Amino acid sequence: MKFAAENSFEVKQKISEKQIAILPIGAIEAHGPHLPLETDNLLAERLSILVAKRVGAFVLPTLPYGQVWSLKNFPGSITVSNESLVNMLVDLGESLYNQGFSIFSMVNGHLGNSVALKEAARKLYERYPDLQVLYFFYPGMSEVVSSIRETPSSHNTYFHACEIETSLMLYLAPEYVDMERAICDIPVIPLSADATPTPWEEFTDTAVLGDATLATKEKGEKVISVVLDNIVQVIEEVRRGVATYKSND
Amino acid sequence: MKFAAENSFEVKQKISEKQIAILPIGAIEAHGPHLPLETDNLLAERLSILVAKRVGAFVLPTLPYGQVWSLKNFPGSITVSNESLVNMLVDLGESLYNQGFSIFSMVNGHLGNSVALKEAARKLYERYPDLQVLYFFYPGMSEVVSSIRETPSSHNTYFHACEIETSLMLYLAPEYVDMERAICDIPVIPLSADATPTPWEEFTDTAVLGDATLATKEKGEKVISVVLDNIVQVIEEVRRGVATYKSND
Amino acid sequence: MKFAAENSFEVKQKISEKQIAILPIGAIEAHGPHLPLETDNLLAERLSILVAKRVGAFVLPTLPYGQVWSLKNFPGSITVSNESLVNMLVDLGESLYNQGFSIFSMVNGHLGNSVALKEAARKLYERYPDLQVLYFFYPGMSEVVSSIRETPSSHNTYFHACEIETSLMLYLAPEYVDMERAICDIPVIPLSADATPTPWEEFTDTAVLGDATLATKEKGEKVISVVLDNIVQVIEEVRRGVATYKSND
Amino acid sequence: MKFAAENSFEVKQKISEKQIAILPIGAIEAHGPHLPLETDNLLAERLSILVAKRVGAFVLPTLPYGQVWSLKNFPGSITVSNESLVNMLVDLGESLYNQGFSIFSMVNGHLGNSVALKEAARKLYERYPDLQVLYFFYPGMSEVVSSIRETPSSHNTYFHACEIETSLMLYLAPEYVDMERAICDIPVIPLSADATPTPWEEFTDTAVLGDATLATKEKGEKVISVVLDNIVQVIEEVRRGVATYKSND
Amino acid sequence: MKFAAENSFEVKQKISEKQIAILPIGAIEAHGPHLPLETDNLLAERLSILVAKRVGAFVLPTLPYGQVWSLKNFPGSITVSNESLVNMLVDLGESLYNQGFSIFSMVNGHLGNSVALKEAARKLYERYPDLQVLYFFYPGMSEVVSSIRETPSSHNTYFHACEIETSLMLYLAPEYVDMERAICDIPVIPLSADATPTPWEEFTDTAVLGDATLATKEKGEKVISVVLDNIVQVIEEVRRGVATYKSND
Amino acid sequence: MKFAAENSFEVKQKISEKQIAILPIGAIEAHGPHLPLETDNLLAERLSILVAKRVGAFVLPTLPYGQVWSLKNFPGSITVSNESLVNMLVDLGESLYNQGFSIFSMVNGHLGNSVALKEAARKLYERYPDLQVLYFFYPGMSEVVSSIRETPSSHNTYFHACEIETSLMLYLAPEYVDMERAICDIPVIPLSADATPTPWEEFTDTAVLGDATLATKEKGEKVISVVLDNIVQVIEEVRRGVATYKSND
Repeated sequence: MKFAAENSFEVKQKISEKQIAILPIGAIEAHGPHLPLETDNLLAERLSILVAKRVGAFVLPTLPYGQVWSLKNFPGSITVSNESLVNMLVDLGESLYNQGFSIFSMVNGHLGNSVALKEAARKLYERYPDLQVLYFFYPGMSEVVSSIRETPSSHNTYFHACEIETSLMLYLAPEYVDMERAICDIPVIPLSADATPTPWEEFTDTAVLGDATLATKEKGEKVISVVLDNIVQVIEEVRRGVATYKSND
Repeated sequence: MKFAAENSFEVKQKISEKQIAILPIGAIEAHGPHLPLETDNLLAERLSILVAKRVGAFVLPTLPYGQVWSLKNFPGSITVSNESLVNMLVDLGESLYNQGFSIFSMVNGHLGNSVALKEAARKLYERYPDLQVLYFFYPGMSEVVSSIRETPSSHNTYFHACEIETSLMLYLAPEYVDMERAICDIPVIPLSADATPTPWEEFTDTAVLGDATLATKEKGEKVISVVLDNIVQVIEEVRRGVATYKSND
Repeated sequence: MKFAAENSFEVKQKISEKQIAILPIGAIEAHGPHLPLETDNLLAERLSILVAKRVGAFVLPTLPYGQVWSLKNFPGSITVSNESLVNMLVDLGESLYNQGFSIFSMVNGHLGNSVALKEAARKLYERYPDLQVLYFFYPGMSEVVSSIRETPSSHNTYFHACEIETSLMLYLAPEYVDMERAICDIPVIPLSADATPTPWEEFTDTAVLGDATLATKEKGEKVISVVLDNIVQVIEEVRRGVATYKSND
Repeated sequence: MKFAAENSFEVKQKISEKQIAILPIGAIEAHGPHLPLETDNLLAERLSILVAKRVGAFVLPTLPYGQVWSLKNFPGSITVSNESLVNMLVDLGESLYNQGFSIFSMVNGHLGNSVALKEAARKLYERYPDLQVLYFFYPGMSEVVSSIRETPSSHNTYFHACEIETSLMLYLAPEYVDMERAICDIPVIPLSADATPTPWEEFTDTAVLGDATLATKEKGEKVISVVLDNIVQVIEEVRRGVATYKSND
Repeated sequence: MKFAAENSFEVKQKISEKQIAILPIGAIEAHGPHLPLETDNLLAERLSILVAKRVGAFVLPTLPYGQVWSLKNFPGSITVSNESLVNMLVDLGESLYNQGFSIFSMVNGHLGNSVALKEAARKLYERYPDLQVLYFFYPGMSEVVSSIRETPSSHNTYFHACEIETSLMLYLAPEYVDMERAICDIPVIPLSADATPTPWEEFTDTAVLGDATLATKEKGEKVISVVLDNIVQVIEEVRRGVATYKSND
Repeated sequence: MKFAAENSFEVKQKISEKQIAILPIGAIEAHGPHLPLETDNLLAERLSILVAKRVGAFVLPTLPYGQVWSLKNFPGSITVSNESLVNMLVDLGESLYNQGFSIFSMVNGHLGNSVALKEAARKLYERYPDLQVLYFFYPGMSEVVSSIRETPSSHNTYFHACEIETSLMLYLAPEYVDMERAICDIPVIPLSADATPTPWEEFTDTAVLGDATLATKEKGEKVISVVLDNIVQVIEEVRRGVATYKSND
């Protein structure tokens, strides 16, 4: 399942069997006192493994650097530009296509990457119309989250190092969570944050957007269960679509 | 020592103490039947850890995708362009500089990355003259290798999946080597390969450039010992240079 | 209020008084049988005028070409790339800054432009930190829309040539609407449309995403009233922020 | 005739009939005390309409932002770079080609755009050899102008907010001219202005290059009459050329 | 006078004395049967030497490759893009500035380079405001030419391998002209050639635009005499401007 | 043999016969007190002529500007970026291909150009697979040099204005060498120079890396003899390869 562990003599046959490459992509980013900088990478990587088990895919090495504009001034954050990210993802997609994959699926653990992933997918779509490029950032999460959370959300799109993301970590990567250091910090985000570039240090000192102390493994499991089903469903749809299309040739 | 495992609340102080960030960079590339596609990543990562222990540095997450032009048509290889690599490395350097690091050291496990690393270092040098950017590809290796190897080299610069690289793996990452599948394949490389773009499938079917069966952990240890000393020596020189320079202000 | 109608001899003084430039931006895009291709431009332009009256701003000439990826294959649609749009918007922002404006506010009538607007705003933020760059796509619309609409939404983000957008037109630009040709067409959008590049011809023949026959001027007025208040509020906040900041110098 | 006012259901058929898209392009630029900043846009747009009536073309929405290097420091001027302009024009040309147009004709009201228009036309020529791309900046104007003007020209290429351009406005857009404020200002332009970058503030305070008080509607009509005939003649030649070429296939 | 022949130990002092660097730039381009492909390079180089003698400048090595769009399909023509040319010229200007030159003067022998030279000059102007960048393409030539030529011009801007250019060669580089092979070929250039990309093979088989048999050394001398005076005058003006400006510091 | 001296009427036939274009490329760079700034250009050009005589090729005009990062701060050096160089070389290769050449061979006299030449060759290889692109920087030189030199080398890769390069000049371009001013200056190059951007002024004041007084014409001849044979051999191999390949069609 781990692509990088394969050897060159046998991998060609396996590619033709699996057809699906999953790229975990996250970021190195401040996540408060209780979560490591690599939180988004860990989540992307472990969710990718769950997906791969369900659909029979290869998991590629995690691309550990993402677009971290909003939090780039917090200690430990590392950011790359949208342009750099798009270019590298397009290169990867092209290589995977040349290697014989028919589905390139990016499992994203960091919201800031979303623009780059979609842009890369569209560029690949134009160049390689028979390569299916997918991008996932916790699809279908919002409904299950609203039924789970015990505190109101700071923002209608953002969740970060909070009740929810910490729960995801407690389910997917608990050995990296230090719940004794979890804090509750619910910032007031100004309305203008959706209308003008707003580094997060303007409204939070901790980069925690909620009450991390309320996180539980169970909450994380509920969210991941829904998200995983959604990802698998889309991949299966796309795979069948490809199969059908091919049999029509 | 592992940067990504730190948390945002404590990492700032540690950056100001360590001052050195080491980026392992390799590639996903065909390495014959006995070595995994991630060989260059494993070597870069483990060598980085040895360096970090000696100089007291942070090791960043490995950038696992490199420029694999020559072997890109072999099964399992994934390549990104020089431009994509340079842009991302420059972004990383800029972020590390903004985070307070004064030395950004790239430990490279894949020859094909060398051009991009040097170009990125020069661009960063122009923009951030007080950030020291280093790039290492087994410095000082050639002399010790020539004293060790039992078979002549296929090429004066290239070594790949052969007696030497397999020895490096046996020393640094033995659990990833399958010596029972190691082969001897010494191709004749045409003179023109240094003067015109020459994909390696033109002169090898295996991507092995030598006799991998002669690899030993001891050979690997000898090479790494020299290389490690050289890297540490350069970093120490540069670090003292910075310190001296600063005290002169 | 209309910047382009000013003359060079008097405009300098007026810029220093108004301080705010509003750029309407839309697209040329298929909008069904009852709405013109320029629908998004008309909405952006007329909403901009309402905003300008409230805050005392200049309205710039409408940038009439936008990023129309999803509908670009429908008759009449014209698209420009994100890169082209970002570059031109950054140029405009730089010029406005050099002309003495302190707030550059983009009023967007086309969802597909959102990525480019945000990216341009961030680039301008890095280069000209004392220029406030704003981007608006019907802020606060979702709540009022859900209380108004009589038919369920085809998608949680998209609305297009439907009950809602047609209502906006009936309020802001009724002379361009031909309600006799309004249709009801509620497509089923596949789950994968949020995870892979999906031109809309894959799920609709009309480009109408809902029941346009239910559109009324009153619905449009309710939405615009909320949106207008939100835009004005953000601009006023930002303007006061700037003023305060300056008095601190 | 106005493309943007069409709707998606009927426009396809009309495109296949008309075949010609005309893009007016001008600039926002200082034009003295008696002409508005949008002078070049108004001229381009109204001339485009005259052309469209003669040849049966669609007129696209005016691209109102141009390359205004020389006058960019005058109050009210807004400039975009050649690169931004070329990229957007190439995108537009590509879209028009995909929509089924066979002739893309740019009617330019601002000399500073000429380089970008020609460069864009050449790029489109290379990519879409069967799309005819035209660019016009008052073709054949120089002869008629020299027979009309009562004052010598400040420069052999430039004319700006002067006897000539004001006359064009009096003919094409008289409601935007305030002749009571027209001035006479004939600067001496140094020889070096053709050999080194020379912002116009180095030789004029008004941006008026001549005697605007001598402008008349009749002079404007004479110029436009010649120019219009020339444009129509070229379009007709090109259109017939296409037809002939196609019948030869 | 020849910069490239200097050595590093003495050149610094000489740069501080001369202050002016002249770059000849031409092209490799078809010039009929009687002139070599390097005609534009020879003219630029020899005219540069005459200028350098008059103003006391260094002449740089000729940049022998230019933008040859119109004639690129003729045998022997070599073209580079505007982008490539602009980038290299900007690099050269930056280097000359860093070396201590205050005037960078491009003497151009090929009309097709004009756009790139002006664009490069503007970019350098923005970055290095105290570097004077000049570009010359036979300044003031049109008047003297119209008094000299015995045959009407094929075009109001173009002259190529004709009575005029051949005369320039007979004066500046006679050893490269084979008058026995000179021809007369006066093509009719369609009006559309100024309005749409038009490779010259559409209207000429020889690339000669006139009657080369009428060329004489005397005609060439008259043109060059005027052009040379004009170039020297502009350089002197600019040099004095710089000197005055500096004494004001 | 000199391409630029040909005329357009006859060159097409000659291109089809010769098939090989040789581009000399060097740099303007400090070479101590005894060698001119154009040393690398002279060497590239004269070596190119020797090669052309042996293989029957055209020699193109020398591209006299190269990437001179390391020595760019020395008096007289002029540098262009890798990007500019790569773009221009790719343009040249494309033009040569369109003109009918099948082999484009770059003879390089300046080590700093090597990265750009290889990158350009790879880009051309991808676009024009049936154009053979070659790049040579004194192939096979190292062995013969080590048998000739009387003083140890300052560096395992660099040689500059020293015993060796001066010898090359004494053989290929003796009229440009002033042996009376030749000096001996053997700098100690720090180990870090291979691991971090290191302008040469950090370790040398003269830019001479060795004992230039030991240079002789005989040494130069020995090196050039070997290098010339190697270049000719590769070109012949490639030429035969092309021929063979073609007969297989």
